Formats: sequence, C-alpha cells, structure tokens
Amino acid sequence: MLSLSLLIRFKSLTLHYSPSPSTSFTLFRMATTRASFSSSSSSSSSCSVPAGDGVSPPSTGVTAPSSAIDFLSLCHCLKKTKRTGWVRREIKDPESIADHMYRMGLMALIASDIPGVDRDKCIKMAIVHDIAEAIVGDITPSDGISKAEKSRREREALDHMCKLLGGGSRAQEIGELWSEYEENSSPEAKVVKDLDKVEMVLQALEYENEQGKDLEEFFQSTAGKFQTEMGKAWALEITSRRSKRG
Amino acid sequence: MLSLSLLIRFKSLTLHYSPSPSTSFTLFRMATTRASFSSSSSSSSSCSVPAGDGVSPPSTGVTAPSSAIDFLSLCHCLKKTKRTGWVRREIKDPESIADHMYRMGLMALIASDIPGVDRDKCIKMAIVHDIAEAIVGDITPSDGISKAEKSRREREALDHMCKLLGGGSRAQEIGELWSEYEENSSPEAKVVKDLDKVEMVLQALEYENEQGKDLEEFFQSTAGKFQTEMGKAWALEITSRRSKRG
Repeated sequence: MLSLSLLIRFKSLTLHYSPSPSTSFTLFRMATTRASFSSSSSSSSSCSVPAGDGVSPPSTGVTAPSSAIDFLSLCHCLKKTKRTGWVRREIKDPESIADHMYRMGLMALIASDIPGVDRDKCIKMAIVHDIAEAIVGDITPSDGISKAEKSRREREALDHMCKLLGGGSRAQEIGELWSEYEENSSPEAKVVKDLDKVEMVLQALEYENEQGKDLEEFFQSTAGKFQTEMGKAWALEITSRRSKRG
Repeated sequence: MLSLSLLIRFKSLTLHYSPSPSTSFTLFRMATTRASFSSSSSSSSSCSVPAGDGVSPPSTGVTAPSSAIDFLSLCHCLKKTKRTGWVRREIKDPESIADHMYRMGLMALIASDIPGVDRDKCIKMAIVHDIAEAIVGDITPSDGISKAEKSRREREALDHMCKLLGGGSRAQEIGELWSEYEENSSPEAKVVKDLDKVEMVLQALEYENEQGKDLEEFFQSTAGKFQTEMGKAWALEITSRRSKRG
C-alpha cells in the first residue's frame, strides 16, 4: 500500500486535473497500487508505480517531457505482464497485454467503414482500453473479483496515470476513451469491445494450432456476445476456420 | 522459397492492387518469405506466410472477413518475434516487435501538438512502421544486410501483406504510411522516426535498471540523430535520468 506522504501527494495532484463534465470519468485519490493486487496479476516482474512530480499544470496539447516519460515508464508494465487467461492455461511464452492491444489497434486500422463510427478514434480506444492494467494487472472473472470492484480499481489506476501525464487535454482524451469503452457508451466502444473478443478468439485459435491445446472456453465465453456486424463476421470467420481444421 | 504455383498466384494478385501514384510504394511479386531470412530473425517460432485467396477485388473502405483474418494471422508473428537487439544482448524475456510498436502508438497519442503534424496519422504510422517484420523478421545493422537490401525485402513483404488484405483503401493507407516512414518523407515520419529511437532508449534504460546490463551502445547509436524538438526533449529526459542514476 502507499505511504501516507504519497497519498497526500496524490491528493494534491487532484487539484490540477479537470476532466470533462460530459463523462463519468471521476477523480479518486490513488489509494491502491499494482502491488496490492499482486494476487490477481500473472506477471512475475515488479511494476513500480511512480507518484508523479505534481508540478505540471494542465495545458492544452502540451505534454512535459518528464510527465511523458513517467507515463511511458509505467506503461512498460503492459509489455511485461502476460495475459492472465493464457498463463492460467499454461500457454508457453504467452502474449503481453501490450501485444493484445497492439493487434486490436491493427484490427481497428483495417476495419471496414461503418457509418457513424470514427475509425481513428477506434484505433486510439483499442490501444488505451486496457491501459489501467499497467497498475492493477489483468484481472479476469476467475480471480473472484466482482465486475464493479474491477472497474473501480481500474478507474483509480487510470486516474493516476492521467495525473502522471500532468492532466491537460491528452489525459482528458485518454480518460474519455477509457470511460466510453468501460461504459460501452459510444458506437466506437461497441466496435472496440467486439475487437477485444475477436482478438482473443483469434489468439486462442493460434495457440490451439501451435501448442496443441483445447481452448474451447474462450470461444464459449464470447459466443453470442458480439454487438456489431463486423465483429460477428470476423468471429464467424475464425470459428469456421477452427471447425474446418477438424 | 515459394513454389512456382504460389508465385503465379502472387503475380495474379498484382492485377488487383492499385497503389497511389503519389508514393513510391511499388509492386513486386512475392519471391521471398520469412523462411528465407531465418538467419536474420531472432524468433524461434515458425511464422508461416499465407498466400491469400486472390478472390477479393479492391474496394473502398471494405475489408472482407477472410482477408482481415489472413492479414491479422500473419501479424501474430509481430507478437511472437522478440526484438533482435535485446536477444543479442541476452536480455531475459525481451519485448516483442508488437510491444515496441504498441508503446510507440501511446507515445504518438500523448505527444504535444506540433504545427503541421497530424497526430492520428502518427499513431497509425507508429503501429504500421515495422509491420513488414512479420515476414522478414527484425533485421538489424549487425546482420550484415545492407540498408538497401533490408528495405527491398521489407517492401516486398509489405506488398504481400497489402495483397492479403485484398488491396483497396486500407491496403493503400498502410502502404502509404509505411513508405512515408521508410522514406522519411513527411512531418509525421520525422516524428515517428524519433519515437522509434526514444522508445528504444527508454526500453534500454528499463532493461539496464531491471537486469543490471550496460546497454550504452543503444544510447550511442541514437545520439544526435533526433529530427524533432519533441524527440530531442524526450531523449534528453531519458538520458538525464540515466545519468542521475549514477
């Protein structure tokens, strides 16, 4: 857990951050860290959470170098942390959280035009949606943590990351992208939620083919849950290939 | 090497693809595969290169599900292939090519506004710029392959990936982003080339701190080569932290 002095520093940071009132992206003092969730993290590496210097005032479209490097250093954990679902199934050399978000970014890039959907925004949402896992780790349904508690922890973590960035328009954009995804509250969020599932089942099929595993549970957990025609079509393509494999 | 029948299929695919004449993104028949560059790849996993079905005509803003999954399956190699520089220095559990491009995408996302630079385009260029490595692997200066030959191999690979996508506007966009980066021919390319180096030295510093290595060569190879003020400032922030570490 964080020390009292660190909590005070976090508290002071909240004074600098002004999120958009149009979202429910709310501020919390950062009272928990990745370390306190170690039981739900599959990574063996220690990911420290910098406190931020608290000196960067919010400004539009300007990111101070020290804030940028603080933020990016924390995001290193996304490369180091392996996705829990694969670790639990003892997949050899499983992908990182960053690997997963990377291919989701590519998926959004190659996605067909959909009326009312901003593709560039989907790409940004894809690379942001799991970013709080840099602090809380990859919590899955098997961890025995409620969906509400998972969301609360991730929102706290996201707030801290935005503070590391010094607030400002970039932090606000990241917060809004994350909240829209979390709340499934925009056309882009519906697309990216589908991409999240499509990426997982494609990865499951690849691990099945490469490592001789049966990962049926990942297909079952996503079946019937796609919200967009594109998500349904891509998932069908993957499950068809799996069926044809015999 | 590819079979004759496969070469003929690639040749037929070129008929479907019409890149923008404004770039030098030229078409080649795909005559080499990742397998033929195995000496320059650090991955122990086999990454097969699908030939594509050759039946999808180019169309604007539409990606057929089979083309999308073919393309994305090939991009799985970007998750599996570890960056050669770290493998050579015996870094434990080194990052993947996808990990590297992922954090570059985040860097572009949080970058300050720069007049004349399209930040969304930088994000897309960041997640595309090393994409040809899904086929040719991560070729580095130490591999004894000339810069021109490396570029030629990557361009061939990129062409093949665009054909897998069935041509069309998404393939064209990816080709143009890749070519601009390769040729350093746009303001966005200059930013993203700097982010490529900044991401590498930040990763080097993190590995130094975590694994007790001396990775001075990575700092030396990038010193004085940054093209943008932001790149210089972020690199300076990283090298300052390294110096203060003592």
